[in-house]
Amino acid sequence: MKYGVVIFPSKSLQDKVNGYRKRYDPHYALVAPHITLKSPFDADEQDISKIAEQLRRVASLHQPFSYHVSKVKSFEPVNNVIYFKVDPNDTLTSLYEMLHTEEFPGEEPYRFVPHITIGQKLSNDEHSDVYGALQMESIDLTEKADRFHLLYQLENGSWTVYETFLLGKDA
Amino acid sequence: MKYGVVIFPSKSLQDKVNGYRKRYDPHYALVAPHITLKSPFDADEQDISKIAEQLRRVASLHQPFSYHVSKVKSFEPVNNVIYFKVDPNDTLTSLYEMLHTEEFPGEEPYRFVPHITIGQKLSNDEHSDVYGALQMESIDLTEKADRFHLLYQLENGSWTVYETFLLGKDA
Repeated sequence: MKYGVVIFPSKSLQDKVNGYRKRYDPHYALVAPHITLKSPFDADEQDISKIAEQLRRVASLHQPFSYHVSKVKSFEPVNNVIYFKVDPNDTLTSLYEMLHTEEFPGEEPYRFVPHITIGQKLSNDEHSDVYGALQMESIDLTEKADRFHLLYQLENGSWTVYETFLLGKDA
Repeated sequence: MKYGVVIFPSKSLQDKVNGYRKRYDPHYALVAPHITLKSPFDADEQDISKIAEQLRRVASLHQPFSYHVSKVKSFEPVNNVIYFKVDPNDTLTSLYEMLHTEEFPGEEPYRFVPHITIGQKLSNDEHSDVYGALQMESIDLTEKADRFHLLYQLENGSWTVYETFLLGKDA
């Protein structure tokens, strides 16, 4: 079974992001807009309660925090993903690092660049057009995060929440 | 903002249900298969942390439980919703009742018939055809529930999880 760990931005930012994703992201219907803290990884259904317990501990060790969404960027040429850049901060980095110890299964394909995807799987031409247009849009938002979520993937590719973890609560 | 409270069945049952929903339920892409404990209700974004606290208390007062999914049924003639019937049990009824006191906003349009929707918004002819065919399918599943989720709706109609509540945990 595939699992992943994400932060969902505020409803207003999710709505804004979905306005783009509807047109530019074929994963639009599979999962709500999110910041990935841990990329999809395989784990047995039996192991998940232990993983949830570890995540509860990680959540307890961090306090609610703010993050800044500062501009539209692209991972091109690695891939044609267009995203809202989330400026790195100590809590995000610490959460990421604690989710990538030997305690947890899964390996990351890339180093941690916190972001919210707004378009992907675009052809090179589409990517150029869309990225060019979106870079004109100015974005400067401060968001609060007080929780993260463990998701699992269904056979149709969509993601369901297994559990929510509140930052700064006792494990 | 619209909120709702649901139980997600096991992944295997969600996959089975989505196999039908893909064809028979236009809400397929908006939310994972679920048992509704509290129908969509309006609440201010500021009120939600208080509602979450009340839900934590409700969760703490119930223990994990099993439920039985026994057959395919329809709400016709009230509406053309085809569903897997969930046999009522004490915990489901108690959860429902505690989510419908004056403490919580929202009113239920119908009395509580626990179910998992597999098709809706069908024309009368489609409904007859599909319901006739599905009634041949025998279903006899016992599922475990140890949590429920508070969801909120985005502008595009899809639902995101706000928080998970584990049954039998301290509030």
